[in-house]
Amino acid sequence: MNIRNIEDKVLLINQLNYRGNKINIYLTTNKNINLYALEKLCDSVGWVRRPFKKVKIAIEHSFLIISLFHIKDNSNILIGFARATSDHAFNATIWDVVVHPDFQGKGLGKILMDQIIQQLKYADITTITLFADPQVIMFYKNLGFLADPDGIKGMFWYPH
Amino acid sequence: MNIRNIEDKVLLINQLNYRGNKINIYLTTNKNINLYALEKLCDSVGWVRRPFKKVKIAIEHSFLIISLFHIKDNSNILIGFARATSDHAFNATIWDVVVHPDFQGKGLGKILMDQIIQQLKYADITTITLFADPQVIMFYKNLGFLADPDGIKGMFWYPH
Repeated sequence: MNIRNIEDKVLLINQLNYRGNKINIYLTTNKNINLYALEKLCDSVGWVRRPFKKVKIAIEHSFLIISLFHIKDNSNILIGFARATSDHAFNATIWDVVVHPDFQGKGLGKILMDQIIQQLKYADITTITLFADPQVIMFYKNLGFLADPDGIKGMFWYPH
Repeated sequence: MNIRNIEDKVLLINQLNYRGNKINIYLTTNKNINLYALEKLCDSVGWVRRPFKKVKIAIEHSFLIISLFHIKDNSNILIGFARATSDHAFNATIWDVVVHPDFQGKGLGKILMDQIIQQLKYADITTITLFADPQVIMFYKNLGFLADPDGIKGMFWYPH
């Protein structure tokens, strides 16, 4: 499956069991995201709210956006999201990986990450990086990510 | 000193002692960098060479480029460099921080980083990140960077 530049959508999972129904999960890389739907998704995992204006800028200036959704009553229901910044050449950094709690434990996080990695590999990015919270370090290790390779440390500076 | 959008140059250090002479060090954020000069600078610290074509793309798609140079016989001599990727809103990641060995130990690395931080703060970036090699972790700590804050781990995935 060629998932690059998916402005419309591709079927990612066919007939997923969800609350006694079978639903299809789709993927898109389209940046034209409903910001209310994204806020709702981020609310569902307890993230601090962020101003729409900044979220819009961040999406516009991300190298890659991936959204997962299903379709209900002809509407797209956003259930997963991730994005990456990049210099378009050497490195990319993945941010804001989120799967709706109702859809966690079904392998969607792995599928989402696999698609991001596939896209970034296709774009010939040399190094894919991210900053993992403690509770998801094992999740990323299982995907092949290395923590602190060669003693390299992730470091943060917060404006004050 | 207002150093934002410095397309020409600003005087950063007046009359630095260098091999018995006094030289001035300038700073620019201009992306129009001589790629041969940049390669020479990276060679001087032993970095692996990278294709010009990819370096050019990376510079174009970096949010911020900072170069330090002095002027000799009417030519700019590049002696320091750093760049940052960003989503222009929440996060920025600093890459490729380099100071020529002849100019190390004179506080130029700190001055370079201070200027990057100042620029990113001015751009209202919430979180400044980087990945530090073991031998420079203390350098960044002294600048106010935190390693693994709240147990957050820097993680890497290398295409294979």
